[in-house]
Amino acid sequence: MNVGGFLLALIAIFVSAKLLGELAERIGQPAVLGELIGGVIVGVSGLRLVDPRDPTIYLLAQLGIILLLFLIGLDTELDKLLDVGVAAVVVAIAGVAATFAGGFALGYFLGLPAIVSVFLGGSLTATSVGISARVLSDLGHLHDREGQIILGAAVVDDIIGVILLTLIGRIAEGNDLTTLGVAWLTIVAFGFVILAIAIGSYLAPMLVRLIDRIHVARGLFFSSIIFALVLAYTAQRVGSAIIIGSFAAGLVLARTDKGEEIQREVHDVAHFFVPIFFVAVGAAIDVWAFNSKVLVIGFGLAAIAVIGKLLAGFSATGRGLRRSIIGVGMIPRGEVSLIFAQIGLTSGLLTQGLYSAVAVMVVLTGIATPSLLRALLPQHAPTELHGQCDLVMDAPMEDEAAT
Amino acid sequence: MNVGGFLLALIAIFVSAKLLGELAERIGQPAVLGELIGGVIVGVSGLRLVDPRDPTIYLLAQLGIILLLFLIGLDTELDKLLDVGVAAVVVAIAGVAATFAGGFALGYFLGLPAIVSVFLGGSLTATSVGISARVLSDLGHLHDREGQIILGAAVVDDIIGVILLTLIGRIAEGNDLTTLGVAWLTIVAFGFVILAIAIGSYLAPMLVRLIDRIHVARGLFFSSIIFALVLAYTAQRVGSAIIIGSFAAGLVLARTDKGEEIQREVHDVAHFFVPIFFVAVGAAIDVWAFNSKVLVIGFGLAAIAVIGKLLAGFSATGRGLRRSIIGVGMIPRGEVSLIFAQIGLTSGLLTQGLYSAVAVMVVLTGIATPSLLRALLPQHAPTELHGQCDLVMDAPMEDEAAT
Repeated sequence: MNVGGFLLALIAIFVSAKLLGELAERIGQPAVLGELIGGVIVGVSGLRLVDPRDPTIYLLAQLGIILLLFLIGLDTELDKLLDVGVAAVVVAIAGVAATFAGGFALGYFLGLPAIVSVFLGGSLTATSVGISARVLSDLGHLHDREGQIILGAAVVDDIIGVILLTLIGRIAEGNDLTTLGVAWLTIVAFGFVILAIAIGSYLAPMLVRLIDRIHVARGLFFSSIIFALVLAYTAQRVGSAIIIGSFAAGLVLARTDKGEEIQREVHDVAHFFVPIFFVAVGAAIDVWAFNSKVLVIGFGLAAIAVIGKLLAGFSATGRGLRRSIIGVGMIPRGEVSLIFAQIGLTSGLLTQGLYSAVAVMVVLTGIATPSLLRALLPQHAPTELHGQCDLVMDAPMEDEAAT
Repeated sequence: MNVGGFLLALIAIFVSAKLLGELAERIGQPAVLGELIGGVIVGVSGLRLVDPRDPTIYLLAQLGIILLLFLIGLDTELDKLLDVGVAAVVVAIAGVAATFAGGFALGYFLGLPAIVSVFLGGSLTATSVGISARVLSDLGHLHDREGQIILGAAVVDDIIGVILLTLIGRIAEGNDLTTLGVAWLTIVAFGFVILAIAIGSYLAPMLVRLIDRIHVARGLFFSSIIFALVLAYTAQRVGSAIIIGSFAAGLVLARTDKGEEIQREVHDVAHFFVPIFFVAVGAAIDVWAFNSKVLVIGFGLAAIAVIGKLLAGFSATGRGLRRSIIGVGMIPRGEVSLIFAQIGLTSGLLTQGLYSAVAVMVVLTGIATPSLLRALLPQHAPTELHGQCDLVMDAPMEDEAAT
């Protein structure tokens, strides 16, 4: 891509994200739904101005989701998250088990080989935390207990998703799995988060004091960004999930004296990158590749994806929870599902049709969730909530805020 | 480049830019000098964490210089720029003529073919406005008449540089030049700027009023960025210089009611991208490729580059000007020179040695300018100047500001 093409892609991303996002809000839907549909219009299905497989667009989208999770981490209280920890782990495990079993059963029902069914099952397991977090934040419900459980469970099942991905990748390459190998992978993936939070909680206040003392120009802004990037990079290197790294960075920095200041500082840059992620997700969808067989299997996968996570929501432990909200919040699938499908496709195990069916499932779950969540949640004015104003990407209009 | 490599490159860019930039300031040098040297350390000469030829790094660096010129445009009053217009045009033409003649003469003296000498001369013509603008802004002198003349002349000779580049590119491809073709190219390149400012001055206030009325969330931020990207893209398409487009966008928006608000809104995002440009410039320098012959020719080119622009500075019309400051401000060479050398190299006209000599010239002029300008200019506190606080990337420490 040359500079001209790059500028055109950025223009298309921002224009479509703002126009469609605004339109979505005017008809009572979350802005992120508009951004996804904006992506479909400017992407491979439509104007072809944004190519999500272009390395630069892909990397900027990754930076967008990394910064979104960093902001969400900054806006999350670790104590509140740990309070719902048991419920979150239960929801995550139940959701992974139910959807994996369901996807495998669908493959079996279709007469596919076991390894292919494993890919289908695996692709259904991990919630894409970006969409739910955006919607909860847009609607001012990120700090509800249900919101915290969704966030915690999505983090846990993202890690499980990465572990499964690694395991299935090894199987697809023809390797045998050893119990020790699986155990080690699991320990590293979860251990990273625990260690990052534990060590980070010591280091972050020292870092903040150091920056304060040596008085570097814009030091807080850059050291926060660098901190998030370093944790994201480390997470990827050790085999955990990249966005878990930046989320942990946010969690840790939120507990320092400067948590709210950092949130304000990082906000504008995140604003710039986050729409690139959501538009790129929409841009990857090739609606013209969907034929009737693909659509039928895609709808089947989506039904399993939805039912599995609703069941998981109902398994949440705790009193007075609105469990349907938890289940719905876990519905969206995204990059982990597509990576599963991608590996399946490139290893020759998934056909182009099954790959497209997974993409249909991602589209359906992604597009359904914002409206479903909005329907279930009472309307808040996000700007009135503590710390919320810094996370909300698109504040509702004043007349809505008054209702 | 995968996500891990990308994150590592970003970490290297921000860490080196902040550490070396801070160090430079502590020893009385502008921060941008530190960023350039930081680039040398993390780039191809050193740690090799930042590859400036990687498409993503290249495009982000381009976005950095586009946003820097946008900010500078936002901080520039068109009337003040037009006041010094005649002096700026005189300085630009004198500088282009003197350096082109000098470069050509050096080639002739070395016994090189005429077309090769044309490349050498061409590579010396265009000032890289980024470095001077950063230094002037860092030191609080962007609004001096000398600063405005440097800015205006750099804009004009960037356009001349792009015209020369197109012409010499056509010659290198073996095409003949027609008077009509040259005239048309010149009219389009300069006409774009005049038209962009004329039409933009009508459209921008309407755009700002529209954004104000329809009340889109973060509308001013995104519409300003989109406006800058659209003008940059258009400039490139019609054959003018890309950074001239975003500079014109800034000039035009600065004249609306919301000029200062836009400057504040865009500031943080520019902060993020600008260091990528300067570190990438440093990262491209391969100091190990410099042998004694390359160094001798490189110093020769640098001497011509410096003398030519100093002469141009002394040709400035107007009373009471500090002409040495104008000359020194025009010294830095950058991307246009390297693009000349690149085209020469790929077309087989320049040897690897001559290409490296141009790179040596770019390094020497770029690294010399910040210190020279600082020595010539009285120390201001940039934050005390009107509108200046929003442009300055690295405010000096309080103890310096008090002097």
